[in-house]
Amino acid sequence: MTSTGRSQLRRIEERGSRDSKDIHAILDAAFLAHVGFHQDGQPFVIPMIYGRQEDTLYLHGSAVSRLLTTLDAGVPACVTVTMIDGLVLARSAFHHSMNYRSVVAFGTCKKIPGSSGMTRALRVISEHVLAGRWQDVRGPTRAELAETTVVEFRIEEASAKCRQGPPLDEEDDYDRPTWAGLLPLTLTRALPQPDPRLKAGIELPSYLMRPDT
Amino acid sequence: MTSTGRSQLRRIEERGSRDSKDIHAILDAAFLAHVGFHQDGQPFVIPMIYGRQEDTLYLHGSAVSRLLTTLDAGVPACVTVTMIDGLVLARSAFHHSMNYRSVVAFGTCKKIPGSSGMTRALRVISEHVLAGRWQDVRGPTRAELAETTVVEFRIEEASAKCRQGPPLDEEDDYDRPTWAGLLPLTLTRALPQPDPRLKAGIELPSYLMRPDT
Repeated sequence: MTSTGRSQLRRIEERGSRDSKDIHAILDAAFLAHVGFHQDGQPFVIPMIYGRQEDTLYLHGSAVSRLLTTLDAGVPACVTVTMIDGLVLARSAFHHSMNYRSVVAFGTCKKIPGSSGMTRALRVISEHVLAGRWQDVRGPTRAELAETTVVEFRIEEASAKCRQGPPLDEEDDYDRPTWAGLLPLTLTRALPQPDPRLKAGIELPSYLMRPDT
Repeated sequence: MTSTGRSQLRRIEERGSRDSKDIHAILDAAFLAHVGFHQDGQPFVIPMIYGRQEDTLYLHGSAVSRLLTTLDAGVPACVTVTMIDGLVLARSAFHHSMNYRSVVAFGTCKKIPGSSGMTRALRVISEHVLAGRWQDVRGPTRAELAETTVVEFRIEEASAKCRQGPPLDEEDDYDRPTWAGLLPLTLTRALPQPDPRLKAGIELPSYLMRPDT
């Protein structure tokens, strides 16, 4: 990855990183990105599921979606991924904050042509979101691929930001009689819900059994 | 709100709405937005906490952040809010999906001048994120306000999108021996964690006690 002014971390440098390891760790912990681009001077930000392989993110959607038909054209894009870890409740309004991990990545999208390349990229997305799933499902047909656009977003430049830990108050405020601390927030899995039309005798696959479910 | 082509819902119309009630309900259920704008042809997407009042979203940040100094200038912006509700696991790769609620809003930001207007807007943000908190904390000083930029984003146009419910497979695929259903995902509160420096005898405030904590 290169570095221009785009990914310069302007504030609170200690919370930022341009290290690929930090960037990949955040990208691998999430699966939803907010993809920004502009068209005729109007910015758009669209939520999209992604998969990562090295410094490439794969995005997909309907062949007629605005995003993908625009990104096809190779316009510059910004892909941002944010994980919320909690609210930081300080003694002053000013020092309230959020614990989070985020990546802001810059690059350009390119449409992936051809069934085999598209299918490979769709597999990366599927395995990124839920490892083990792809082998269980019917793969895409040619007709389905014709309705799909898959783009690869090469990360040219990115930065990670992260805030963790308790509030940091002004020294004078620690004596205030205000409760302070963290309200942890986590995207949590609940028990898998079988499709009402699920055939009898089909067991829950092992990749959906987890200690927290 | 007006309607130009920007918020036209291109796909699967049944999942979309331009009704203010639907839009407000999603905006009120979340507190993190992804704000998109562009500068010198480069799109940026930045995660930001917000508060809502009628058709206005309030955003805040450091007075030196790139976003807020750019938005000051009244550039067009797109504010997108997405809540993940779960993975939709279909029998075919093609029909995999995500249950979610999202709003894509278009408008322009305007900097809020003056301490009283800024403080009012910061209170809206604080109460939006955690109702009841504002009265417990030390309000912002003039020096703190001088380090802060608060902008109001008037929603000129917006659309809500929502997918809920089980997978919808091709009729032929319902006979496949593949587990199908939902993996629900929810942003969940864990037990509040007191600041290590919290003074003895300060009770957890009632607005942090909830059935799920």
